[in-house]
Amino acid sequence: MSGFTHFDSNGNAVMVDVTDKDITERIAIARGVIEVNDEVYSAIKNGTVGKGDVLGTARIAGIMAAKRTSDLIPMCHPLMLTKVTIDFETDDDAKSIAVICTAKLCGKTGVEMEALTGVSVALLTIYDMCKAMDRSMQMKEIHLVEKDGGKSGHYIRQKSL
Amino acid sequence: MSGFTHFDSNGNAVMVDVTDKDITERIAIARGVIEVNDEVYSAIKNGTVGKGDVLGTARIAGIMAAKRTSDLIPMCHPLMLTKVTIDFETDDDAKSIAVICTAKLCGKTGVEMEALTGVSVALLTIYDMCKAMDRSMQMKEIHLVEKDGGKSGHYIRQKSL
Amino acid sequence: MSGFTHFDSNGNAVMVDVTDKDITERIAIARGVIEVNDEVYSAIKNGTVGKGDVLGTARIAGIMAAKRTSDLIPMCHPLMLTKVTIDFETDDDAKSIAVICTAKLCGKTGVEMEALTGVSVALLTIYDMCKAMDRSMQMKEIHLVEKDGGKSGHYIRQKSL
Amino acid sequence: MSGFTHFDSNGNAVMVDVTDKDITERIAIARGVIEVNDEVYSAIKNGTVGKGDVLGTARIAGIMAAKRTSDLIPMCHPLMLTKVTIDFETDDDAKSIAVICTAKLCGKTGVEMEALTGVSVALLTIYDMCKAMDRSMQMKEIHLVEKDGGKSGHYIRQKSL
Amino acid sequence: MSGFTHFDSNGNAVMVDVTDKDITERIAIARGVIEVNDEVYSAIKNGTVGKGDVLGTARIAGIMAAKRTSDLIPMCHPLMLTKVTIDFETDDDAKSIAVICTAKLCGKTGVEMEALTGVSVALLTIYDMCKAMDRSMQMKEIHLVEKDGGKSGHYIRQKSL
Amino acid sequence: MSGFTHFDSNGNAVMVDVTDKDITERIAIARGVIEVNDEVYSAIKNGTVGKGDVLGTARIAGIMAAKRTSDLIPMCHPLMLTKVTIDFETDDDAKSIAVICTAKLCGKTGVEMEALTGVSVALLTIYDMCKAMDRSMQMKEIHLVEKDGGKSGHYIRQKSL
Repeated sequence: MSGFTHFDSNGNAVMVDVTDKDITERIAIARGVIEVNDEVYSAIKNGTVGKGDVLGTARIAGIMAAKRTSDLIPMCHPLMLTKVTIDFETDDDAKSIAVICTAKLCGKTGVEMEALTGVSVALLTIYDMCKAMDRSMQMKEIHLVEKDGGKSGHYIRQKSL
Repeated sequence: MSGFTHFDSNGNAVMVDVTDKDITERIAIARGVIEVNDEVYSAIKNGTVGKGDVLGTARIAGIMAAKRTSDLIPMCHPLMLTKVTIDFETDDDAKSIAVICTAKLCGKTGVEMEALTGVSVALLTIYDMCKAMDRSMQMKEIHLVEKDGGKSGHYIRQKSL
Repeated sequence: MSGFTHFDSNGNAVMVDVTDKDITERIAIARGVIEVNDEVYSAIKNGTVGKGDVLGTARIAGIMAAKRTSDLIPMCHPLMLTKVTIDFETDDDAKSIAVICTAKLCGKTGVEMEALTGVSVALLTIYDMCKAMDRSMQMKEIHLVEKDGGKSGHYIRQKSL
Repeated sequence: MSGFTHFDSNGNAVMVDVTDKDITERIAIARGVIEVNDEVYSAIKNGTVGKGDVLGTARIAGIMAAKRTSDLIPMCHPLMLTKVTIDFETDDDAKSIAVICTAKLCGKTGVEMEALTGVSVALLTIYDMCKAMDRSMQMKEIHLVEKDGGKSGHYIRQKSL
Repeated sequence: MSGFTHFDSNGNAVMVDVTDKDITERIAIARGVIEVNDEVYSAIKNGTVGKGDVLGTARIAGIMAAKRTSDLIPMCHPLMLTKVTIDFETDDDAKSIAVICTAKLCGKTGVEMEALTGVSVALLTIYDMCKAMDRSMQMKEIHLVEKDGGKSGHYIRQKSL
Repeated sequence: MSGFTHFDSNGNAVMVDVTDKDITERIAIARGVIEVNDEVYSAIKNGTVGKGDVLGTARIAGIMAAKRTSDLIPMCHPLMLTKVTIDFETDDDAKSIAVICTAKLCGKTGVEMEALTGVSVALLTIYDMCKAMDRSMQMKEIHLVEKDGGKSGHYIRQKSL
């Protein structure tokens, strides 16, 4: 089981021991995309201009979910996040919305899972709020963009999606 | 705001009133994929044969998350799911793992979001347990496969991914 | 202990037995107010017109909290709410914001606590988002406006506040 | 959006970045009141002497809720509270119960919201346990009494209620 | 895997499908014991007479935990409990406290796990509140006393402990 | 109330103030046992060899529950656990399964309750997954084995069970 850190020498799942790791500032940025149809795309774009705010709701859902990552992902450590933001990019050609989540803390372990969880729940919230118009929406390209801090150092995703 | 059911006539977010909807048997099936590298793919495949059980952990995380959907997605109704299952399909050529979540209940509203949340959290758990080997994994093709029950009837996704 | 329903004959706290109560449509409306200073009042009013949406955030927080009432209030039954809405009224003279929460379900027990919890958490969220400008805000007049359904029938608050 | 700290320069809701703030001892005290009728007031007073303990139940609910503040209030940071207490003052003339919550931690951000959440949920619990006797109870004067620690220093509420 | 209902034909964990089961009134009673030393036993007994109420706190914790059983036990269905009570029996000779939890609902599946979870968390709370006086306390004899309702009918534990 | 630390001088429940305690490495190990019948014992033993993994599911449930201890036990502080593991010992003669939970953190207060909660929920999960075969299973001998760190120093349980 050499490659896994989430299993002990008998192959049993464990929450990795981070007791002796240094407290450092850590940051992670994750990103994902939801593809929608024309009707949904227009409604979301108009909604953010007017008052029916799909993206505002998704932002709050994503931030709240990032804080609850250790409740959802079995081997994640409870963490005291010091910052979470959710941003959106709309693509008029692809009729898609990108969700970007940035998470930070001073702590003993990284915040990749928090950033990825924030992205996933924000995407699910967009799906939920628009599903009466289009059930065929697809969520894709959910990945870690960048992380920094801790022993493993600075990581920037190189592989094209 | 005609297309949205999650906003009132002023464009404000609401939890849709389902008080008068019929209690019927409802089912939803969602699916998503995580692409991994060769090392991770072999480790997961071996893990499920031996004892280090990435997919077993992801299955439990997905089932537990499906039950908590209304805690995560702001406008989802609390529901009493009567069944949740998570299945996996491995693709040796693409080095990818597909997660399929099926959710059922007898109730007044559908369970698409529960199935999609189960898929998303199972995928995130696979990512978490393998990220020490590969941070470039990507989650994709998260979509509703099929739903049945309720006024909107039987839906099967037609659009190719 | 005659007046209490939340204590048994020995005076011990219990979750009231509602097993034999009828399943009926039940509704409750609660209301509360937060008094703010001029600066906060203007910022909130402008915010709802522009993009910095204090009330939109408070609405989502209130709806999500109403769904979690039985996690917070020890003797509340878990319920499957079929509707929750949060509305706001602004009072330019008093520089105050009123929060109104409506909760509905078909079930064996009423939803007063869900409506009151929705109001309280929406008010707390307004406080949180504005506290950097004014720490002296006060929340007040949190009360049940009206309820209907179930054996105790229709209640409308008569007493002036 | 100059006055708000919970919005970025585009007016979008964010969890404020506290990564670089100092870890200091922080304390906050909040207070709120519930007005009840004569029957409820007597029952509560007798209850705390005998065994039917409305206030004991409200104390526990308030302490547990203070610990979950970041689950309820969207932009609150997860915190490791080092102390929470709930105290009560009864007013025989006004037939009212005051709830006082004190929260402490060593951390990077203040605990006002934790103290206010503790007060609000303790008040809601009193309402819940007594509502069979009186539905017209009102919660009021929920406010921050005092806070200390952190860059903004010592605050004591001056404004009369 | 013939004996297990929580695994499918491939041996994978599933939440059992209860969609087609009848809605019936179901009840379960569970019981467990904590052995304490003389000092703790006296303090608890005196506490329940005076104001320092270990058992009152344990009762509330047990009731709240019973409501959250499906959040804790992976394959438990979310349920709408209609009643939960926690009772205590003290044994002056054995210096032990018994916790009895009764859970009820009208639903499609039984409430044994809810009753057992209520007992376990009430016992843990007694341990927590007394551990400064005695760390050697032991919890034991946690078992299902009786259940009724549903296809499997009436069960009363016969085997001596 | 001299012996209790969870009550103030008036006997009211409090979350103990640990603000001024040192941050030290703390560890706790707890253990408990479930007695099962022959059929269940064989199924569990075979299950861990094959794919139907009762103990794997119980391990994950125990780890996740340990992280949520402060949500369940009213006076427990929220903590940032740095490690949780669950191990099992099977006893072919007694037909019993022992659960051992180890919890660690660097913090201001001990992790006994986290280790005991992990044990209790893992035992409950074993019960849940096997209850269709045997409802007479009993959980017992749940106790603190050892703790270290903090002012009270090293504790090893001496008393025989």
